[in-house]
Amino acid sequence: MKIVTTPYELKLTNPFGLARSTRTTNSIVLIRLDDLGYGEASPSAYYGEDVPTVIQTITQAVPKISIYPLYINEIMSQLNQQFPSNAAARAAIDMALYDILAKRLRLPLHAYLGIAPPRCAQTSFTIGIAPIEEMLEKVDDARHHPILKIKLGKDPDHDLTVMREIRKRTNQTIRVDANGGWTLDNALTCIKTLADLDIEYVEQPLEKGNLADLAQLKKASPLPIFLDEDVLVSSDIPKVAGTCDGINIKLMKCGGITEAMKMIHTARAFDLQIMLGCMIESSLAITAASHLASLVDYLDLDGNLLVSNDPFQGMTLENGYLRIPETPGLGATPRQDIAELCEAGII
Amino acid sequence: MKIVTTPYELKLTNPFGLARSTRTTNSIVLIRLDDLGYGEASPSAYYGEDVPTVIQTITQAVPKISIYPLYINEIMSQLNQQFPSNAAARAAIDMALYDILAKRLRLPLHAYLGIAPPRCAQTSFTIGIAPIEEMLEKVDDARHHPILKIKLGKDPDHDLTVMREIRKRTNQTIRVDANGGWTLDNALTCIKTLADLDIEYVEQPLEKGNLADLAQLKKASPLPIFLDEDVLVSSDIPKVAGTCDGINIKLMKCGGITEAMKMIHTARAFDLQIMLGCMIESSLAITAASHLASLVDYLDLDGNLLVSNDPFQGMTLENGYLRIPETPGLGATPRQDIAELCEAGII
Repeated sequence: MKIVTTPYELKLTNPFGLARSTRTTNSIVLIRLDDLGYGEASPSAYYGEDVPTVIQTITQAVPKISIYPLYINEIMSQLNQQFPSNAAARAAIDMALYDILAKRLRLPLHAYLGIAPPRCAQTSFTIGIAPIEEMLEKVDDARHHPILKIKLGKDPDHDLTVMREIRKRTNQTIRVDANGGWTLDNALTCIKTLADLDIEYVEQPLEKGNLADLAQLKKASPLPIFLDEDVLVSSDIPKVAGTCDGINIKLMKCGGITEAMKMIHTARAFDLQIMLGCMIESSLAITAASHLASLVDYLDLDGNLLVSNDPFQGMTLENGYLRIPETPGLGATPRQDIAELCEAGII
Repeated sequence: MKIVTTPYELKLTNPFGLARSTRTTNSIVLIRLDDLGYGEASPSAYYGEDVPTVIQTITQAVPKISIYPLYINEIMSQLNQQFPSNAAARAAIDMALYDILAKRLRLPLHAYLGIAPPRCAQTSFTIGIAPIEEMLEKVDDARHHPILKIKLGKDPDHDLTVMREIRKRTNQTIRVDANGGWTLDNALTCIKTLADLDIEYVEQPLEKGNLADLAQLKKASPLPIFLDEDVLVSSDIPKVAGTCDGINIKLMKCGGITEAMKMIHTARAFDLQIMLGCMIESSLAITAASHLASLVDYLDLDGNLLVSNDPFQGMTLENGYLRIPETPGLGATPRQDIAELCEAGII
């Protein structure tokens, strides 16, 4: 199987702050398999990946994939075993293989997977951590987005002050994500106030691994609790059942669409709610994830909206509603200004 | 969507005894959708279905299915909600829809699903409950099958006597299925002896619903415990985790390939083993299930081998190894002697 691999630096429109870090760029890897299938890895240092590990994994893995027939379930099972710690790299391969499969069959990916396109699905738009005035300014700028997701987890004083100020300014649907930044006590305090502020749900309130505290928090919490860092793949779901109301599935955490489907099926067996999330990604990976939209409850697919030099186009937001391409494959194409690089085999 | 529905009576080569009943025939329903997709329901009174309920469900459900595009995940989700107690009827529809989808795309079903064909997969052959001499005769007749599954659950004396006699005669791999016929004490006694007789695993030792006893049995059991009657669909799996080592997935219990895939994914998230089983079915439904063979650990797909008037042909056993068709769709076709009925639109 022929492969072209290109690192690409996504530039962020604004610096983006999380409980753990602030960034102005994000390095991704774009791949093209057999001149037909596009894939993207957005590696995260938190999960032990970076551009070199992604390129190394893809370079080792892809030549072993037999071109035809593409038994993607078996291929991804083997890659899971061989590269268990390289989920973003696996996601890029999985995405490119699905692009090839669906293009060969002349079906949009969602139709190939037997999944209906989303109807009335809206994604949240994320506001990163920053000094309060800056966050409020970003909230003002995001007035046209139907749903906001506010990054919290710095400290309860900051978090509650900023949320009170935000709620004074807008009646938008608001979710919060603490990215594991709270202690149990802080979480209990914060979530009570957040419920009074009519917040929809809270994501990853406690640091990864605190399942005993989490179980206690869930019992006391007036708001639904979603887990992100605690749930990477389907086999993590039984461990957290009973400690949360839902999970956040991301292609870059789990290793692609194949594993994301397994997570959706497993979560539903537990009657858990599902949000479909992302890292900072181009429209390529966001479009790939969008094909699963109608299987989940909440969308948090805004990684591409934070980027000023998006190399791909695909899904769109029309009046806040997600529209996915009905062209064959992922339906994501390089933007005109990088089409030359693509033709030259670079992207 | 155009539909033809035909009841068909499968005749058994030999009377077939279970812990609950003995039968000489089995009534199924064959369907054809849009002159292209074949489906089969093998309803079971134990699960509250029969030929009239199957025909009624299919007649109500199918006309509402939009011909194109076939978003099978969404269609089956809706049918699950509308007809929760009609799994065999849903399985027939699901099977016929997959037959249509894969035929339209000119792919064998397993390739459409991204699943490799089975390599070196052998199915067990079932010996029903009967007087001991009769069971031993059947075991002698089944010498060419690589694996036997012996139906037990009558009473421990009968069960252990027959198993000792069988083991004297053959070194074949042997599994047993008590169909819920034992008490906890009986199971503990029987399984110890079965372990000495080098039996591979025990299926459904206790009556459905005895999960507390089952957890106790699992702790004490020297053999792996598989559940059948206790696990119908994916949402049953979290409830039984910790009480068993594996589950038996059957299209007729769960409602088809779509739900079977969900069960496989959920079971794997729990690190449970999987057997793929069947009811007494024609080669149509057995062939449909066979396409999932490489995703599971054990095959018990012998329902068609017990039948003397199989209306379909599809999967084959070559030297005991399962071979699945590489023709488009399920790869199951009506046998020559019923091809006329088929042409007339009856089957």
